[in-house]
Order: sequence, then C-alpha cells, then structure tokens
Amino acid sequence: MNTQANVLIINGPNLKNIEKRDHKIYGSDTTEDLENIIYSECKKLNCKATFFQSEYEGAIIEKIHNATEDFIILNAGAYTHYSIAIRDSIEMCKIPVIEVHISNIYAREEFRQTSVLSPVCSGTITGFGIYGYVMALYAGLDKLRKEKQK
Amino acid sequence: MNTQANVLIINGPNLKNIEKRDHKIYGSDTTEDLENIIYSECKKLNCKATFFQSEYEGAIIEKIHNATEDFIILNAGAYTHYSIAIRDSIEMCKIPVIEVHISNIYAREEFRQTSVLSPVCSGTITGFGIYGYVMALYAGLDKLRKEKQK
Amino acid sequence: MNTQANVLIINGPNLKNIEKRDHKIYGSDTTEDLENIIYSECKKLNCKATFFQSEYEGAIIEKIHNATEDFIILNAGAYTHYSIAIRDSIEMCKIPVIEVHISNIYAREEFRQTSVLSPVCSGTITGFGIYGYVMALYAGLDKLRKEKQK
Amino acid sequence: MNTQANVLIINGPNLKNIEKRDHKIYGSDTTEDLENIIYSECKKLNCKATFFQSEYEGAIIEKIHNATEDFIILNAGAYTHYSIAIRDSIEMCKIPVIEVHISNIYAREEFRQTSVLSPVCSGTITGFGIYGYVMALYAGLDKLRKEKQK
Amino acid sequence: MNTQANVLIINGPNLKNIEKRDHKIYGSDTTEDLENIIYSECKKLNCKATFFQSEYEGAIIEKIHNATEDFIILNAGAYTHYSIAIRDSIEMCKIPVIEVHISNIYAREEFRQTSVLSPVCSGTITGFGIYGYVMALYAGLDKLRKEKQK
Amino acid sequence: MNTQANVLIINGPNLKNIEKRDHKIYGSDTTEDLENIIYSECKKLNCKATFFQSEYEGAIIEKIHNATEDFIILNAGAYTHYSIAIRDSIEMCKIPVIEVHISNIYAREEFRQTSVLSPVCSGTITGFGIYGYVMALYAGLDKLRKEKQK
Amino acid sequence: MNTQANVLIINGPNLKNIEKRDHKIYGSDTTEDLENIIYSECKKLNCKATFFQSEYEGAIIEKIHNATEDFIILNAGAYTHYSIAIRDSIEMCKIPVIEVHISNIYAREEFRQTSVLSPVCSGTITGFGIYGYVMALYAGLDKLRKEKQK
Amino acid sequence: MNTQANVLIINGPNLKNIEKRDHKIYGSDTTEDLENIIYSECKKLNCKATFFQSEYEGAIIEKIHNATEDFIILNAGAYTHYSIAIRDSIEMCKIPVIEVHISNIYAREEFRQTSVLSPVCSGTITGFGIYGYVMALYAGLDKLRKEKQK
Amino acid sequence: MNTQANVLIINGPNLKNIEKRDHKIYGSDTTEDLENIIYSECKKLNCKATFFQSEYEGAIIEKIHNATEDFIILNAGAYTHYSIAIRDSIEMCKIPVIEVHISNIYAREEFRQTSVLSPVCSGTITGFGIYGYVMALYAGLDKLRKEKQK
Amino acid sequence: MNTQANVLIINGPNLKNIEKRDHKIYGSDTTEDLENIIYSECKKLNCKATFFQSEYEGAIIEKIHNATEDFIILNAGAYTHYSIAIRDSIEMCKIPVIEVHISNIYAREEFRQTSVLSPVCSGTITGFGIYGYVMALYAGLDKLRKEKQK
Amino acid sequence: MNTQANVLIINGPNLKNIEKRDHKIYGSDTTEDLENIIYSECKKLNCKATFFQSEYEGAIIEKIHNATEDFIILNAGAYTHYSIAIRDSIEMCKIPVIEVHISNIYAREEFRQTSVLSPVCSGTITGFGIYGYVMALYAGLDKLRKEKQK
Amino acid sequence: MNTQANVLIINGPNLKNIEKRDHKIYGSDTTEDLENIIYSECKKLNCKATFFQSEYEGAIIEKIHNATEDFIILNAGAYTHYSIAIRDSIEMCKIPVIEVHISNIYAREEFRQTSVLSPVCSGTITGFGIYGYVMALYAGLDKLRKEKQK
Repeated sequence: MNTQANVLIINGPNLKNIEKRDHKIYGSDTTEDLENIIYSECKKLNCKATFFQSEYEGAIIEKIHNATEDFIILNAGAYTHYSIAIRDSIEMCKIPVIEVHISNIYAREEFRQTSVLSPVCSGTITGFGIYGYVMALYAGLDKLRKEKQK
Repeated sequence: MNTQANVLIINGPNLKNIEKRDHKIYGSDTTEDLENIIYSECKKLNCKATFFQSEYEGAIIEKIHNATEDFIILNAGAYTHYSIAIRDSIEMCKIPVIEVHISNIYAREEFRQTSVLSPVCSGTITGFGIYGYVMALYAGLDKLRKEKQK
Repeated sequence: MNTQANVLIINGPNLKNIEKRDHKIYGSDTTEDLENIIYSECKKLNCKATFFQSEYEGAIIEKIHNATEDFIILNAGAYTHYSIAIRDSIEMCKIPVIEVHISNIYAREEFRQTSVLSPVCSGTITGFGIYGYVMALYAGLDKLRKEKQK
Repeated sequence: MNTQANVLIINGPNLKNIEKRDHKIYGSDTTEDLENIIYSECKKLNCKATFFQSEYEGAIIEKIHNATEDFIILNAGAYTHYSIAIRDSIEMCKIPVIEVHISNIYAREEFRQTSVLSPVCSGTITGFGIYGYVMALYAGLDKLRKEKQK
Repeated sequence: MNTQANVLIINGPNLKNIEKRDHKIYGSDTTEDLENIIYSECKKLNCKATFFQSEYEGAIIEKIHNATEDFIILNAGAYTHYSIAIRDSIEMCKIPVIEVHISNIYAREEFRQTSVLSPVCSGTITGFGIYGYVMALYAGLDKLRKEKQK
Repeated sequence: MNTQANVLIINGPNLKNIEKRDHKIYGSDTTEDLENIIYSECKKLNCKATFFQSEYEGAIIEKIHNATEDFIILNAGAYTHYSIAIRDSIEMCKIPVIEVHISNIYAREEFRQTSVLSPVCSGTITGFGIYGYVMALYAGLDKLRKEKQK
Repeated sequence: MNTQANVLIINGPNLKNIEKRDHKIYGSDTTEDLENIIYSECKKLNCKATFFQSEYEGAIIEKIHNATEDFIILNAGAYTHYSIAIRDSIEMCKIPVIEVHISNIYAREEFRQTSVLSPVCSGTITGFGIYGYVMALYAGLDKLRKEKQK
Repeated sequence: MNTQANVLIINGPNLKNIEKRDHKIYGSDTTEDLENIIYSECKKLNCKATFFQSEYEGAIIEKIHNATEDFIILNAGAYTHYSIAIRDSIEMCKIPVIEVHISNIYAREEFRQTSVLSPVCSGTITGFGIYGYVMALYAGLDKLRKEKQK
Repeated sequence: MNTQANVLIINGPNLKNIEKRDHKIYGSDTTEDLENIIYSECKKLNCKATFFQSEYEGAIIEKIHNATEDFIILNAGAYTHYSIAIRDSIEMCKIPVIEVHISNIYAREEFRQTSVLSPVCSGTITGFGIYGYVMALYAGLDKLRKEKQK
Repeated sequence: MNTQANVLIINGPNLKNIEKRDHKIYGSDTTEDLENIIYSECKKLNCKATFFQSEYEGAIIEKIHNATEDFIILNAGAYTHYSIAIRDSIEMCKIPVIEVHISNIYAREEFRQTSVLSPVCSGTITGFGIYGYVMALYAGLDKLRKEKQK
Repeated sequence: MNTQANVLIINGPNLKNIEKRDHKIYGSDTTEDLENIIYSECKKLNCKATFFQSEYEGAIIEKIHNATEDFIILNAGAYTHYSIAIRDSIEMCKIPVIEVHISNIYAREEFRQTSVLSPVCSGTITGFGIYGYVMALYAGLDKLRKEKQK
Repeated sequence: MNTQANVLIINGPNLKNIEKRDHKIYGSDTTEDLENIIYSECKKLNCKATFFQSEYEGAIIEKIHNATEDFIILNAGAYTHYSIAIRDSIEMCKIPVIEVHISNIYAREEFRQTSVLSPVCSGTITGFGIYGYVMALYAGLDKLRKEKQK
C-alpha cells in the first residue's frame, strides 16, 4: 500500500458518542465531527485511519495486541486512571502509542489527574478538544519520519 | 404502556447468585428471593422491573448507556470501589441511578468503604439486605413523582 | 399499646429548621414537612413517631441511652463526621439505629464523605431528601418483622 | 436604637478567664481587659457589644442560630480545629462572622494550624493578642459600611 | 480536713453504667463495683473520692476548671480521641490529671489508639480494667508525696 | 476418572504469549514452554491440567465461578493489583486458589508490589519464572492430600 | 522625623494591579484604591507608608533585609505557600512583619490554605479585602505602642 | 501587520541550551534547531514567533503579564512543578497559554509528574521532543480560529 | 516456694543506668533506686523480683521465651517503637506481660508515641517515673488474683 | 562431596518452636516435623540440609555472610518487616536466597504485609505452611539446574 | 595557571551575613570569618577561592551554568528544600558540586530535613558550622586527585 | 598519653568487608584501605584510632556506652534508618558522634534517605566514599579544638 501511514484510533469507555459528555468539559463536537476531521486530515496527508471504540478493558487490550498499523492514538477514557492491564499491553506493544484527552484532565477531579498510561506512551496531548487527535496524527507521523532517518 | 414506571435493576460482579456470598455479611436470601420480592412489590405498585447481571464492567456500562427505563437501581458489586468508567456512564445517564448495597460496606474492609459511584448517583442505600432494593424502588418512584410535580 | 411500632427520630445540630440549610443541597422542604410526612406515614402504618432535636452531642447520647422505642432513625448532622462518643452510644444501644442523611454527602466536601457512625448502624440512607426518613421507617419495620420471624 | 451597630462576641471553651492560659502564648491580658477595651472602643464608635462565653459546643451553635446582632466576632477556642457542627451553624448564619485567635495558631502544635471554621467566616485575624478583637470590630463595621453602599 | 488527699474521678461519655459496655472489651465489672473498690481503698488510705460523670464535653471542661481536689483521675471515654477542648482544660489545670482507660485501647480500632489528652496528662494507665482507677489513686498519692518532698 | 487431581490454570491479561513480555523481567520462556512443563509434570503425577487465558476481568470471574476442578492456579496479571471483583470471586470459590507471579513483583514498580488477591488465596509464589506454576501444582496436591487426611 | 511610625508595605507576585485578579475572589478594588486608603489613614495617624511590589522572590528577600521602617505589612502572594527563603528573611528580621491576604485563602484551593510564612510573622489577617491592610496598619501601631510600654 | 498570528515562546530555567540536558531524556536537538523549526513553520503559516528564556521565576511572570501576542507557548522547566506564582500569572493572563514539555515527564522522577500549571493552561503537550512546540503552534492557531468563529 | 508471686522485670536498651538518661524527661532516680523500691515492695508483698537488662533485641526475646515467673514487667526502651520480633515473643508468651515507660512517651517526639508492643501486652503504664514499676507490680498481682478466682 | 546440593535453612526470631505460634495462623506442625520433612525430601533428592535458628538480627546477618552452601532458604520471621540490615546482607550474598513464610502474611495485620527482604530475594513463597520449605527446596534446585545450563 | 585548583563557593538566600542568623543554630561566626578561614586554607593548599552570594534562585542557576572553576561548594540556603530548578542546573553541570549546610538541618523543622539537591550533588556535609566549607574544600580536592588517577 | 586525640571508629552491619558491597555505589576501596588511610592520617596528626565493627545493634549500643575516646566516627550501616535504640545511646553519650556514609544515601532507595541518627549526631558526611572518614577525623579535631577554646 502506498499510503504514508496507517493509524489506529482507539476510544475507550463512554466515548462512543462524545457529544453526550458534559459540553462544558468536552465541548460540543460529535464523534462524527471527530471522524470527519481525521479522515479529512488523512486524505491531505495520504494516511489511512481506522477507528475502534469499546467499553471493555479486555477488548482494548486485545486491539492493542493485534494492531498492525504504524501507530496508535489512544484515548482510554476512564481506564486511563486505573487500568494497569492496558498499560502492560502498551508496554508490550512494538508500535508507538500516543495518548490523547479531549478535556483538560488536570483541571478536573483529583482522581482524573493521574494517568497510569502516560509513563509508557510516546507522549500525551491534553485539553485541546477533538483537535488533539489531529495533533496526535501529526506527532505520530513526525515519529515515523524520525525513525526512518535513523 | 400504563404501568406507573419501568425500573432496570443492574447487579454487578459476583452477584449472580447472592446466596453464595458469605451469609454472615450478605444474609441468606437468594437471588430468586430478591426477584420475587421486587416482582411482588412491582405488582402492587403497577411497575415493571427488568433484571440484568454481568461480571463485565463493559457490559454494565453498555446497559446503562442503552437504558430506556424510568430509573435504574444499581448494585455494582466490587466495581463500586474503583470503576471510574461506570461512574462516567452514570454521569452521562439522563435517568436517575440509585445505588444499593446489600451489606453494610462501612463495617467491612477499608477498601470497601469508598464508593466512586456515590457522588454521581441520586442517593445510596446500604446495609438493609435485599430489602434495600425495595427501598430503592420506593425512592425511585418518589423521585419520579417529584419531577412530575415540577 | 397496640401500635405496630414506636420510632424515635433524632435530628442533630443545625437540623432544627432544615429549611434554613442551603436549598441547593438540602432542598426546600421544612422541618414541618418532615414531621407531617412521617406522622402521615405512621398513621397509615399504625406506628407512633417521636421527634427529638438537639445541638448538643451530650444530649443526643443521653437520648440514645434512654430510648425505649423499637428503633431509632438518626440524622446526626455534622456530628456524623467526628463524634466517636455518639458512635459508642449507638454500639451500646440494644435497639436498631438507622442512619439518614438528607443530602448526598458523597457529592459534597471531602470531610463530609466519612461517617464514623455508619459502621455501627443497621444501615444508611443518603441523598433522598426528607423522603429518606420515610425509607428509614420502612427499613425499621422490615427489621422488626424479620426479628420476630426468627 | 441609634447605635451604629450591635456586635456579639462569642468566646469558646477555656476562654472564660484568658489570663489563666499560658502567658508565653496568650499574653497576660485578662478577660476583664478584653471587655474593657471593647466597651471603650464601642463607646467611641457608638456601638453596642454583647459578650457570650461557653464551654459547650451546642451552646455556641444555639447562640449563633439566635443571634440578632449585626455581626459576630467568634473565637471558638479548641472547637476551631474540629467542630464541623459550629461550621455548619456559621454557614447557615445570615450575618457576618469574623474569626479571631489571640495567639498565633500557626506557630503552635500542628493540630492547631487548621481551622475548620475559616472557610465559612468572612475573614480571620490571628496572633495579635486581645487587640485582634478590636481589629475584628473595625472589620465588621467596614463590612456593614460596604454592604450599605451596595 | 485531715484526710491525706481529695481525689476527683471524672468519667466521660458512655461510662455511666460501664457494665453496659461490651464485656469482651470492658469486663463485667459495674460502675458500682468501681465506686466500691475506690471507696474501700480510700478508706484504707485515708482519702476522699468524689465521682463525676457526664456525656457533655462542656460539662467535663467546667468540672476540670472548677476542681479543688488534690488530683484528678480522668477517663474521658470517646472524647479522649478528639476533644482538644478538654485537652486545653487539662493544660490550664493546676493540679495533676491522671488518664485511665479500662480497656487496652491499643488493641482496638485504629481511631482509639490515639489520645489527644495523653501529652498533657501526668501519666496514662491502660488496659487493667477498673483496677486501673486504683492504680491511678496510688500514682496520684505518690505524686503528692514527691511534691511535698521538694 | 482416576487421575489424582484436575487443575485449572488461569492466566490473566497480557499473558497470552509470555515470551512477548520484557525478557529481563519475565525470562525468555514461552507460553508453549509453560504448557509443556506443566503437562509433563502432570503426566508424572497422574494429574490433568486445563489452561485458560483472557484479557477480560469478567471472563476470569466467570471462569472462577464455574470451575469444577480440584484447585486453581491463578496468575491474574495486572488485575492482581486492583481487581476487587476477581478477589470477591476467589473468596466465594469453594476450591483452593493458588496465586503465581512469574516475575518478582516486589522488585518492580511500587504499584506492582500490592496484590489485592493474596489475602484470599491459599498462598502466593512469586519470582521463580514459569517454574512457579510447577511449584503451585505441588502445593495444590499437598493441600488436597492434607484435606483428605482430616 | 516626627511621624508616629514608618511602615513598609510589600506586595508580592501578581499583585502589581490587584484589579486584574479574579473579582469574585479579590473584589474590584484597584491598587490605586489600596494606596489611597493607606495614605489617607496614614495622614490621620501621622504615619508614613512606603509601597514596594515585585514578582521576584529574591527582591522581596532583599527588601526585607534592608528595611529600616518600624514594621512591615507583607502580602507575599503565591510565595506565601512555598517560599521558605522569604520565611527565613522574616525570621532574621528585627522589626515586626504582619501578614495580609486580600482573599479568604482558606475558602480556595487546598494548596492556598497553607502559609509557610505565618509561623514567623507577628500575626495574620485574611479575607477582608484591601481593608486588611488598614487593619494591619492598626495592628502594627498597637504593637509599637506595647513595645514602648515595656 | 498582516501575519496570521503572533506567538510568544517562553522557555524557563535550564532551557537556554537544551542540547546540554541529558540526551537520553531530552534528545539531541539544540535550541537553534528548535528556533529554526519554529521559524520555518511560522513562515509557512504566516505567523511571527518571539522567543524568551530566563532562569528567573520573576522574569517569566513579568513576561506573561506584559505579553501582547495572540498566544503563549510555555515550557516552564522545573518551575512547572512548584511555581504557584507563575500559575497565578497564567490565570490572570487574557490570552491562551499552551504548556509544552520536551521529555515525557510522567516517565521520570515522581516529583516531575505533577504540573501546578496544567490546571490553568489551555492544554498540555508532553513527550514529543522539540516537535511538541510545533504541535503547540498548531493548537494555538486552532484555538484562535475557533474563537473567531464564535 | 511460698512467695506470693515471682516477677521478672526486663529493661531494654539504654536502661542499664537510667540515671544517665536526660533528667528533664526521665527524672533523677537511679537504677539502684528502682531496684531498691521494687525489692522493698516485694518484701512487703512476699514476692520475688528478678531483674534483667540487655541492649540486644535477641536477648530480650530469648528471656521472654524462657521466662518461668508468674508475670513480666517490660520496659523495652526504644525497641518499643519498632521491634515486631519482641511483639511476637510477647504474643507467644503464656504469662502476662505488663508494659511500663518511665517518661510520658506521648509528650515526646512523634516516633516515640507509637508502641508496637501495647496491642499484645496486658496493659500499659506511662509517665509515672520509676513508680510505674511499682504500679505494674500491683497490676500483675491483681491479675493473678483474678485468674485464681475464675 | 557428591550430594546434588547443600542448602542452608535459616529461621529467624520466634521460630525456634513453631508449634508454639498461634495454630490458627501457623498450623500445628512442629519444628521437628519441618526438619523431618526436609531431611526426608533431601534424602530422595540427594541433598544436604543444615538448619540454623536465631533470635538475633546480627547472628542471621553473620550466618548469611559466612554461608558456603549452594542456596539459602530464609524465613526471617518478624525481621522480614523492618530489617534493612538483613536485606543488605542478602544483597551482598553471592548465592540465591529464597524467602519463605509459613502463614499467609497478606491475610494478617497490615504491618505484616510488607517484606523489606522480598525485593532482593530470588523469589517468595507464602502461605503454604511448612510445605513452603519443601517448595523452596525444589525452587532452589531448579535455579541451580538453570544456572548450570547457561 | 599553577594553582592546584579553583573553587567557587556559592551561598544562597539569607546567607549574606551569616552572623545575623540565629546563633543557637548557626553559631556566631561571621561571613568574614568564613571567607578568612577559606582564604587561609586555600593559601596553604595553593588553591583559589571565589565567593558568590545571591538571594535570587535565577542568579544561582546562572552562576552554576557559567562556572569555569574545578568544583563548586554550594550552600543553597532555603532553596535547598524546594528548588528543583537549581537541582536541574546541578545535574547539567559538568563539574562536581559539594553541598554544605552550616547547621544540622536534621535537628530542625521537618521541612528542612529534605534536600532536593542532595541526590545530584557529589556529597553532603551537614552540621559542622563554617568548618563544613573547609571540609568541602578537602573533599573537592580529594575528588580531583582521584579523577586524575583514573 | 600525649596523642592529640583518641578516636573510635564504629562500622555497623554489612561493613566488615566494604569491598564486597556493590562497587557502583560504594566504590572499590577495601576495609584495609580505609584502615590504612585513617592510620596514616592519624600518624600525621598525632592521633590514635580504634576500629570496631559489628552486625549486632546491641553490640554497637554497648560500644557507644563504654567509649572512653575523645570522639566517635559512626557509620551505622542499615541501622541508620531504623535503630532508635542506637539513637538513644548517641543522645546519652557525652562525647561527640560524627555520622559518616560512604555512598550518597540521598541518591538511593527512598528508605535509605532518612537517618534516625542524624538529629542527635554532631554532623553528617555523606557521599565522599571512604574519604568521608578522613573528613570526619578533621571535623572531630576541629570540634575538640573549639571546645578547648571555650
């Protein structure tokens, strides 16, 4: 395939319809908006994006184990704060995983201010709404570019 | 439908057969007893109750997302103490969720004395055995009554 | 006396006129509303309710020591969070004590999220407004019924 | 009455005879000195001061509930550090409550460095000896002046 | 009076009838047993004992302020664990205060293992049942003897 | 059946292919090695081993509920550190559950040093690589032998 | 000079233009209002006030070292919460330092509820808006008066 | 000026010559590389970037107060972890502030895993090396675009 | 032997010559004074006392294991605060162990305010100087008397 | 010598006569049982076992320093929980040290749930009674076998 | 240059005139004494010492960045306890940095007992008064000697 | 004797042969090197050094009690972190005790970063390898010199 890169975008629990989350915290963008903006950016960049969403911790782990894309953009939702099992799957994962949060988790409840995933991700993008996924796409491509230069 | 109200009763992990839990803590009532007492109360009150039980955090979240009943009675079992994912699904939920615990969780191990769900539930009923579900039924109906009065 | 049961309802500090508490947290029901709803339920159930309120920790302890009713419904107000002395009086008490909170204390300041009384009460009802006292009445009667069955 | 303002000064436990407290921490002023200095300032300012002292948490709560003065100056003594019940009575109180401490509580034992009352008082004055009550008097009058200006 | 010493024995909340406390923890001695054993020892030692019991924190503070005996034996019950107000009254007190606990508080719940009073008492006797009061009597007399020797 | 014992071996998340975990921590043995060594030991001991692996907390709980073997060897992977739900299923389980960890979890990150499962397991074996499963097999048989002796 | 007293008023970081702080917390008074009210009070009291403001921890320390006034009124802004270096300079300082906060820091974020400076200041005034500086002026003069009386 | 946007890039302590930081953590890019990549991106985007670096907390605060650009990209270095004073200046700041960290601070020492600045920034980008500044540039422009759309 | 009772008195580390400890905390009594007062009391009471002192944790454990006396009076010195090994030996010990401390350990450094031994001792006597050993002697005899009465 | 391996078994404080420990926690096996079972296993395996027991932390350290066996099985008793000195001796030790606990320490008091030794031992076996020593023997031999294979 | 070594001595905040610090803690030596003793030792050792003092965190960082001496002796005063920014500058620094404290910081307030700088310094000397700087000089020379031997 | 001073050097557990400790942390110097360098320095300084090493806490305490030298250099090894018993012996000791650590304990595991001995030692030297003992020798002599000057 001559796309520049394949990217897997995983959304965790309660992110099936992001427009149903509290608008003061998550903004009013819909999941469809998110998909459109990513597909549109991918077209410009000659990339291919695949979306996956699940409420199940186990399903997210399996998806990470079986990923064959070039990199993963992961918003693990609430699992971010306690799923050491997902953390282990990221640590085992050979391809880069980029962590995204729509809201500024540091301006919310204290238990949302710790991510057990961040230490094993390539990097983290927090608080930029759904635009954070676009930034993650750019970051992933930059990472691939640098690895090829080595 | 001219039932007074539809109620969804969700039981979480290790609550499939409550009679198998430690009797000193949970009493000796069976899951069948629970269902009978609720169905019998519902008959008197002209309500309709639906039961759901799962060991899977993800399945409970999906059930809450898809609920079309008037209110939910939730005993999330051990997930009560750490599932921020279920908490988020309650927070997104448009209908009232009433938290029930069979045992007095405050008289047990320290880690059982914190519910991450309570802050986003309508209210919590703890320590009254399976009768707590009946109390929750009454509480839910009282809530509906008051909302109609507004 | 051939009433079904006598119940003592103890309200602790700052609960003399509950309508003076913050309405966003406590609702707008008055102490009179509370008494009326309880008296009216008691009439239906052939019970007799006695109300007691005090700002004094010592007076609440004495009242619990001297109670001759069938069960107690206790809303200890702020003493809930630190009065080990009241806790000890409940532990010594031969009759069931049911804990009630009007507001959802788990959705408020952190220091309100711990009750030193819960571990020694029969059960706890939180967040259902003054209707919680009615639920406690039902719970108390259920308890008496079960004790008689033994 | 044509006094400028009525002020209620509440002293809590162990403050009946402040000259009996440790002089290195509380200074050597007597309760009589405190009353004299306040009465004398009040005369100059055309105010009327009423003093109340009690060892009883419940009595302080009742006094705050029943206060009809323009503002309260409160030194809750040791209750400062744990009486959530007094805190609640201040929060319910319609008139301003100004917190005073004779000693510098931040230079003493660690348990004295937290006031559960401060978050619900208008302001706090600490460490200026009995002169702190005079400062509180000025602060209360300034507060009244500003409220009238609105 | 030519008694060797006057001793004031203060019992705090829930200690009016110690035989009503949990026998596994407090033993089965009654308050009457306690009084008899103390009176009998006092007779031998030519002392005079006065007993005082209250559920009220404020009443205990007032009693300590007004004590004219040679020393105080204090079992503050649950107030032991949080009453900084009683602590302050002990600190202000000119006569020795000896702390007694019937049960071994260190072998019970964690919150009972801290006494906020111990640091300002002469000494503490824990776990010897009602005999601890007799030991406190001896300790108080030993203290008086030594002070006279100075 | 005349096998000496049936054993169920449950591996939790990220343990499908243990050779993919970090070799410095987990060694280089494969899941196939593990199965071979267990089958070979079982042959010698006339036992029958069944393997189960899942990334899903809920699936592990169901497996434990439905187990009909003589004992369980459980390596719950990352769920070890937070799954109170699995803990509850072990506590309800009538047959012995033996906890195994391939790596020395006490020599790793702090959050890996606590097992919420250990308190309800028969015993724990940590740090011996895949040989730990063999040790668990021996331990399980020893347990059965002793129970028969009673 | 025959002024009654010279006072140095130090404002720390982000207090150059207090009207730019959040009005809900700091009120709407301007720095000019603050200066005017102090100059006007000083005129009445025959005092001389000097203002100093800096964003630099080091500059505040130097100012305290070099102060030749009779006392200092210090609002150290955010440095209040962590600058042990400023604390040391206050401790070394021969003249009294009076701590002022415009807002009620105890009703704000938890990290603002601790002042590392309070233990070494003469006293602290919190929550009275810019009128707190006037109160500090009075407190400083009272302190000078008492020192002269010794 | 008809540039699309002006951006101020502030680097805090020990970031004058980023190539001198530990390469395993910060990569081997130089400060010159950072400036070149930003200037080059700005050229493409018709923006104007201004760089500022200081070791002084006070200087960073002043720079933020005086900023007239459209948004700020801030890497506060070690001040990230304790400078509440910088936090306050961001909170007062009328223009968006975007937080960037070169390294993945969540994979480093525990004290580096908390940013006191994040709660008051628009968003945070961590772990993408100097490319994080480019991402911040894009994020800032996206933010401006959205504000214009309102 | 027709002595009433044999008592073993164990002194732990740094208690060989108690007169060398800080007199402000330990008083000025010598080890010889302690022995004399105990021998003299024993003579009156027809008891036999044996003294043992060691700096070695192991030696104290062995002494407790091998004790054949009727009860032990133990002042474990600094081992009080951390020797779980001595605690275990007390727990195994068939005869009563009474804990004594010369100083009021609750009025000293925080690390001295916890005794890991108290939960497994019969009772604890703290703060009465060397007279505490005499009190322990009385307490031990009272204990023996009661056990005989059973 | 042509034994397969020499093993040193060190038992720490209060493990001289394990039958004297609490049977509900330690079982009823005697130290003799332990020695017999090990000697009998060793005979089968052609190994030679040496037992050492001491109450002294120092003696255990010396024994570890001077060990010339092929591996050590260590049950350090209560020293497990605080002896960093023993930990250091294990870390210095050239031969493998295998940690054993008879009881399930994770099901006991909180202070017993931490082993300061585990991080530097080869592995840990907990909760299998005296059979744990046999398991340790097998584990040690497996370790030797693998080291020879390298 | 044929001096044996050049040493830079940096003193942080509140150390301009050490004789002004509390003599009970810092002794009565003056900054002049410190300089004289160092110059005199340097003369003997053929070294050259340069002194630098600043109240500014930023200035200390810049000084460390620009140091061209052979080693640094650093007393960072109160910044020792919280300046991660200075810590980072030490970590970046190519020459050894030796930490000195005049007072025994471990015998003072708890917040002074942690140095965030120690982990990245060569070593630390605490509690020897100004003689600690002389010791640091010797330590620095010893370090240089050893590096030359490699 | 006309030596300038006698010094006792005490090494604690696991310091018999320091060359056996981890070289990356302790360097490669041997205990013989340490003795030689000290003896050689002593010769130059006309001092007499005595070495003592023990694995036993009790033996170290006894040695400190019985010391007749002019000062002690103490490296208590792992006991540094928990031996309050050794701490008490230092506090009782009439001669100065200087604490030395070969490694930089602040750059190691967290439990090694606290010394319970430091608060009662004259001063502490950490991280300079065996040269730290030489520095301690100089520090001790400086201390003696100053005491003579008084």
